[in-house]
Amino acid sequence: MDPFEIEILAEPDLEEPVLVEGLPGVGHVGKLAAEHVLEELDSQLVARVYSTHFPPQVTVEDGTAELAHAEFHAVETEEGSDLLTLTGDHQAQDNQGHYGLTDTFLDVAERLGVQRVFALGGVPTGELIEEYDVLGAATTTELIEELEGVGVEFREDEPAGGIVGVSGLLLGLSERRDLPAACLMGETSGYLVDPKSAQAVLEVLQDAIGFEVDFGSLEERADEMEEVVRKIQEMESSAPAASEEDLRYIG
Amino acid sequence: MDPFEIEILAEPDLEEPVLVEGLPGVGHVGKLAAEHVLEELDSQLVARVYSTHFPPQVTVEDGTAELAHAEFHAVETEEGSDLLTLTGDHQAQDNQGHYGLTDTFLDVAERLGVQRVFALGGVPTGELIEEYDVLGAATTTELIEELEGVGVEFREDEPAGGIVGVSGLLLGLSERRDLPAACLMGETSGYLVDPKSAQAVLEVLQDAIGFEVDFGSLEERADEMEEVVRKIQEMESSAPAASEEDLRYIG
Amino acid sequence: MDPFEIEILAEPDLEEPVLVEGLPGVGHVGKLAAEHVLEELDSQLVARVYSTHFPPQVTVEDGTAELAHAEFHAVETEEGSDLLTLTGDHQAQDNQGHYGLTDTFLDVAERLGVQRVFALGGVPTGELIEEYDVLGAATTTELIEELEGVGVEFREDEPAGGIVGVSGLLLGLSERRDLPAACLMGETSGYLVDPKSAQAVLEVLQDAIGFEVDFGSLEERADEMEEVVRKIQEMESSAPAASEEDLRYIG
Amino acid sequence: MDPFEIEILAEPDLEEPVLVEGLPGVGHVGKLAAEHVLEELDSQLVARVYSTHFPPQVTVEDGTAELAHAEFHAVETEEGSDLLTLTGDHQAQDNQGHYGLTDTFLDVAERLGVQRVFALGGVPTGELIEEYDVLGAATTTELIEELEGVGVEFREDEPAGGIVGVSGLLLGLSERRDLPAACLMGETSGYLVDPKSAQAVLEVLQDAIGFEVDFGSLEERADEMEEVVRKIQEMESSAPAASEEDLRYIG
Repeated sequence: MDPFEIEILAEPDLEEPVLVEGLPGVGHVGKLAAEHVLEELDSQLVARVYSTHFPPQVTVEDGTAELAHAEFHAVETEEGSDLLTLTGDHQAQDNQGHYGLTDTFLDVAERLGVQRVFALGGVPTGELIEEYDVLGAATTTELIEELEGVGVEFREDEPAGGIVGVSGLLLGLSERRDLPAACLMGETSGYLVDPKSAQAVLEVLQDAIGFEVDFGSLEERADEMEEVVRKIQEMESSAPAASEEDLRYIG
Repeated sequence: MDPFEIEILAEPDLEEPVLVEGLPGVGHVGKLAAEHVLEELDSQLVARVYSTHFPPQVTVEDGTAELAHAEFHAVETEEGSDLLTLTGDHQAQDNQGHYGLTDTFLDVAERLGVQRVFALGGVPTGELIEEYDVLGAATTTELIEELEGVGVEFREDEPAGGIVGVSGLLLGLSERRDLPAACLMGETSGYLVDPKSAQAVLEVLQDAIGFEVDFGSLEERADEMEEVVRKIQEMESSAPAASEEDLRYIG
Repeated sequence: MDPFEIEILAEPDLEEPVLVEGLPGVGHVGKLAAEHVLEELDSQLVARVYSTHFPPQVTVEDGTAELAHAEFHAVETEEGSDLLTLTGDHQAQDNQGHYGLTDTFLDVAERLGVQRVFALGGVPTGELIEEYDVLGAATTTELIEELEGVGVEFREDEPAGGIVGVSGLLLGLSERRDLPAACLMGETSGYLVDPKSAQAVLEVLQDAIGFEVDFGSLEERADEMEEVVRKIQEMESSAPAASEEDLRYIG
Repeated sequence: MDPFEIEILAEPDLEEPVLVEGLPGVGHVGKLAAEHVLEELDSQLVARVYSTHFPPQVTVEDGTAELAHAEFHAVETEEGSDLLTLTGDHQAQDNQGHYGLTDTFLDVAERLGVQRVFALGGVPTGELIEEYDVLGAATTTELIEELEGVGVEFREDEPAGGIVGVSGLLLGLSERRDLPAACLMGETSGYLVDPKSAQAVLEVLQDAIGFEVDFGSLEERADEMEEVVRKIQEMESSAPAASEEDLRYIG
């Protein structure tokens, strides 16, 4: 097996397709957002990527095993650009894998005609969020201006530590290919799977690309998470020695 | 030395051979099961695999050193499929090694005519087992149905974390080669080397493939382990502050 | 993407250029020193090096993302050798990366005509420094003698543990290319970013190569750090159970 | 730089040369033994091996830097086989490095005509040693018998965990090249650098190969270590809550 293997299943004729990446990360914001698009809109599985840099693992569902991989779905929209989503359950397990996988993802994207790249993710604030801002980073000033127009915030020194993993490298390696790319990062506490942050990211993405999804199921999931948070806060206020440190990651 | 080296020692003419893998893992269930087959039935060493992804180590027995490797034995059965066992003392030490070794194992298996793959292992329950169920995962619905017929359980969301290591990859990489493959996982506490779980797995495998072994020595070893467990439980009930956490892995 | 990629942006005609490396390390001494040269003197960005052995990361400034890399600037001096500085925010993340990156850095240096190599860094003493000595190590006795002449100290058994990372390998790999190389190590506590140590290193480097920079901004930064140290010492003397171990790294 | 680089400095005509490896390990027994041979007998540096799997490091002595490497010296003996020693300050830092370096060492050894391999090391007992036995492991029964004749002990299940690192792989990879190889392991506490254990190993090696060295300097060093042990024991017996665990590794 080669370190990175591409399996093309279909090559639909897409209109000015945009890559929309949502792999696991902070608050699972990007993953929730990209998977929500697939739940709400018709899509076609067009490619899988396997890699020896993914965990050596199969997932099992109803007894059927499936090798760790990332997958691309084509989503044709009624107007504006079509979407090519990139989703999966894993990131690479090492640095070379991060670089190699991202390069492979961009090979697939370019083969399917992708002209712009949007990496979706979360940026941890360490506090429960009141207003869900979406932070941006991009490779061109045109993209920055365009995204500011739909409400994305570009701040002088944020995110402070840069962007790590596939979302960061999608920007860095796209730039080296002269492919315009942006990262949309929903603010999120960092402690919880955060459907509200995912919705905030998707709302911005809709405006930037020009498509529409229903947010009903994402809002339901957000309500469930709020219920979880409410219970934790109750437990905290009734417990004698509870502290901020007791708030663990809950997904 | 290449990362993965195959040493073929014999190429017997096997009848519809089935690969039976039993490398170290949870409760050593797979290893015990596969090695028990070799103890009970006549076998021929047919291949060794060496790898720079194994530990940099030799084992020493009676002063003679032997480089870390995995080995294949051919077992001719009286009726039904012959067996090709895959046993050894090590798994790979890193992700690339897991992928590369499993690929190499399947190269050997296909060279020796293998038509189906059975990976044997244990699935940890965290509790001492009363009834030794065998969980399954497979790459085809035909195999799932066939194995259900001999008592293997296929459950909706189990094993929850998927299957990791060579057993998992044997499924994932076999599927990519269109080679039907199943994993048989004996339930086991996860704290102890578990000959009873190994026996449960082997009983199912016998029915699925069509061969027979005597379980006398495996039952003796199970009795020894039960004696160990009994003593631990005595110590626990007599000790003042004993807790579940005191039950460590014992092999 | 190849493991190590060179991007040459300009090939100025430099006079007997000297490579001056200042990547992150102990007390950020080397990084502060090399970056101070770039702040004070006119320079031209001539090359970037990207690598899959750098962290999988982009930095973001005013919304614009930039892939992790190291960069070379040419600095033409009025008399004596011109400088080729090597700076960046990262070292390699693994051993193979350290070797491969340093080899790549020397490829760039030789392509741009470099005839001598100076690696700048800090050597930790574990104590706050009164007098900022600069320790040296080199690949030739000629260089040792020349540097002793400008005040660099070469001690019998220091630094005791050798020199690790890119600064060390610049010596080791330059020697194998017959390229004279020296490492200038400013003594520093190891607890703090140390502009004074950087200045001590630069003063020696000026004399060795023959160029001049103003130290005003570095001295200001040193004053700020001294203020930090003073406050820590106040807190220590007023705290009841303070100890040497409470002095953490501050940057 | 290639992962493994050989630098041949001389190709003396050696008589039935024997490789004698003494790299760092338990109690530094192998390293002390091989270096003592070089101190006592005339030798010629014949080869160096560099590797990206060594630490990214230079050692510095009197200001002169030297890249991490292992080195081979030829030692011509008056009668019997000549020696080719393999010494250095480092082992590889990862599994692939262990395999690749050992393979490279054997390439050098075979190029210089080596016909037998002796890996020297220590085997930790966890207790202070009264009588310094030397344990053995080998690749052929002829070597086992020959070494039993000079007092090496071959025990049924020792060393229990096999032999790890370059000494182990020298056996494993020599066997795959049909090159007879043995490991001589001096018993040692595992807590201290152990010149006495090194002497025991060398005495056996002398008898096996047929050469002679003076042990005066090794005995002096052993006396110094005994003084250290005596002081530790005094401190232990006078301290109220001292225990076996307080005995740390001292080198």
